[in-house]
Amino acid sequence: MAGLIAIDRERFLADLQALRAIGACGTGVVRPALTTADIDARRFLAGRMADAGLDVSWDPVGNLFGIAPGSGRSLLIGSHSDTQPEGGWLDGAFGVVCGLEVARAAIAAGAGGVSVVSFADEEGAFMPLLGSRFWTGQLGLEAAFCAGDNAGRTLGELARLTPELRAGAQVDPSRFAAYLEPHIEQGPVLDGAGEAVAIVNTIVGMRQIELEFVGDQNHAGTTPMAVRRDAVRAFVRYAAAVDAAFGAGADWADGAVWTFGRVDVAPNAVSIVPGLVRATLQVRAGARERLAHLEQLAIEIAAQQSAQGPCPIVTRRTVNLAPVPMDPALVALLDSAAGDIGRSGCRHMVSGALHDAASVAAILPSAMLFVPSRGGRSHRFDEDTALDDLVVGCELAGAAAGRWLATNRPRP
Amino acid sequence: MAGLIAIDRERFLADLQALRAIGACGTGVVRPALTTADIDARRFLAGRMADAGLDVSWDPVGNLFGIAPGSGRSLLIGSHSDTQPEGGWLDGAFGVVCGLEVARAAIAAGAGGVSVVSFADEEGAFMPLLGSRFWTGQLGLEAAFCAGDNAGRTLGELARLTPELRAGAQVDPSRFAAYLEPHIEQGPVLDGAGEAVAIVNTIVGMRQIELEFVGDQNHAGTTPMAVRRDAVRAFVRYAAAVDAAFGAGADWADGAVWTFGRVDVAPNAVSIVPGLVRATLQVRAGARERLAHLEQLAIEIAAQQSAQGPCPIVTRRTVNLAPVPMDPALVALLDSAAGDIGRSGCRHMVSGALHDAASVAAILPSAMLFVPSRGGRSHRFDEDTALDDLVVGCELAGAAAGRWLATNRPRP
Repeated sequence: MAGLIAIDRERFLADLQALRAIGACGTGVVRPALTTADIDARRFLAGRMADAGLDVSWDPVGNLFGIAPGSGRSLLIGSHSDTQPEGGWLDGAFGVVCGLEVARAAIAAGAGGVSVVSFADEEGAFMPLLGSRFWTGQLGLEAAFCAGDNAGRTLGELARLTPELRAGAQVDPSRFAAYLEPHIEQGPVLDGAGEAVAIVNTIVGMRQIELEFVGDQNHAGTTPMAVRRDAVRAFVRYAAAVDAAFGAGADWADGAVWTFGRVDVAPNAVSIVPGLVRATLQVRAGARERLAHLEQLAIEIAAQQSAQGPCPIVTRRTVNLAPVPMDPALVALLDSAAGDIGRSGCRHMVSGALHDAASVAAILPSAMLFVPSRGGRSHRFDEDTALDDLVVGCELAGAAAGRWLATNRPRP
Repeated sequence: MAGLIAIDRERFLADLQALRAIGACGTGVVRPALTTADIDARRFLAGRMADAGLDVSWDPVGNLFGIAPGSGRSLLIGSHSDTQPEGGWLDGAFGVVCGLEVARAAIAAGAGGVSVVSFADEEGAFMPLLGSRFWTGQLGLEAAFCAGDNAGRTLGELARLTPELRAGAQVDPSRFAAYLEPHIEQGPVLDGAGEAVAIVNTIVGMRQIELEFVGDQNHAGTTPMAVRRDAVRAFVRYAAAVDAAFGAGADWADGAVWTFGRVDVAPNAVSIVPGLVRATLQVRAGARERLAHLEQLAIEIAAQQSAQGPCPIVTRRTVNLAPVPMDPALVALLDSAAGDIGRSGCRHMVSGALHDAASVAAILPSAMLFVPSRGGRSHRFDEDTALDDLVVGCELAGAAAGRWLATNRPRP
């Protein structure tokens, strides 16, 4: 049954390059959700879907589906075609064009049964994962329309300007049986190991804690060390303790990471003992218990140091996203498919980034595959992947689709 | 000879209150250099000086002198009457009104020989210690006139608008034999100890190091801990090491303090591994060797951690001010004078803040005395000192002037 679906390398790469040209900026792409470039890209994809014999459907927020003709629930393959404000050419686009290629190859093979999707605003110009959260019922239409961008425009306002979205209607999720999202890794693991493809077993969960270190703003010359309440020193002591506690005996196979990404000091002047530090600690991990444990540690250290003084520490938990395990049957199917293309035993890994699959997993069995990102670079113009690796990723999607069709939609 | 100069408590406090009313804002004062309020305050002081029989002289940058009539070199007492943008009523003003009161009391006593000064822009609206640095020849007139404020105006531009400054001329420093600056402590030591007055033996020196921690900006989810170059973690490790090294076996009697007052993180976003931290380490100490040693430690730790990686650390020394010891003979004179007013054995201490005396010490024997600051608060509207303590400070200045006159200007 492997080989049922033969993807066309040149056609696949040509479409990726054609998509790259829409909103191109040097080697990168500027195509945030609902910009002219984003809509143009979706129209290009809609045209390719129609050419392939897929039924094109838009929904009111900009999700674009190319649905396999005929009855029966199909395998949905895709990702998103919007980009970061300074985006790379593959983030999202790779998965969508994989879906397009596999769907048309399936039709060419006389099988059909594969649909393709480009979700809207995965990158969060209005709200991260907006399109897939709307489609899966985790975000209402009114709330989606109220989401605003940095320029103060609402999604609803822009959606009304686009005929396809004005005419759009919710696409019934029951038309699909499973979801597969090919994506670039956006991290350094596969590139560093020289591996062309991997299967994602979990999408990390995330906890975020906002911390306030409350000092006493004062003269940096006349305030003796013994009586200072220096908010920067309190932050440094806390962050060092978190690093020590989190790192002790660590085994990061589950993708656990932590980041103090944002640190704001007030009044931030060379001659003033800092009176306040606001910082954010973000923790991600693939295992739910691990994530809860690390968050608990962070809260406990804050409580201890706050009690010791001299600076009270105020903590607030702001984000709590559970890890999303990929569907075991689909993961097993990908494993077998990897064997079909000579990639037996390819790596299983945790996705440290969120993806549309994290939304879709709430309503459909879902899985992901990764291809490398050169130097681990993403969300920047120089994001890139070797063409051969992109093709391997598409072939794995094709082989998985072939196996899935053989089991789920046996030909008469 | 003590008692030669009897200060008038009510007159002294009334003038302090009158000065406070100029630019008053609640309990505080807004009188930055060369604002209308600052010039009005100087005109008020010039009037009081003239009333007392002193010769009033302005110079081109706004320094205001009330010079004892007659020949012979006089004792100069004063400070500054400009304030911070949100200043207290005593920072600078206390010393100037002490000088006024002692000078007129000396004249009333038939002695004379005491002059008074209010230096311009001590608080650095244009440049810290601008007036005293100009007067002592450490800053040229052209450079002083080119100094700009936050609104983009130059000192020269504003000076031309004020007739007294347009007509002003350099006041010959050789008309004075010594300088005494009474000031509020601006720190918590005297208030904490319940002491009314202290003698300053040194003004701290300062070293400032600008540090850059060079990380690699990356995705906070997909970049494993082992390959990150996180600039915030590098800063935290460095600051913790500096704290440990500086604090080990510390004896802070010489006023040594250190402050990471400014910390800027880029791109400062919750989901991005920080790519760059810029921070400033300011070190102050009263002893030259101590200051050099602490700076050397800070540079060495940076070099070590930079070599260890993963983040290179770039250091740049930007400020190097030597500690300024006060004149030993004047300090001894103040000690004796303290005995005259029943304050024998009062504390000697380091000034952690810079003052005009640090400039003047380059050309005249100089000394300072401190009165307490309630709660150590200064550079804010609620800066305050008990009236009785202000009077003790003024009495100490008067007693010191009496002893100084007895030795240096014996009456015929």
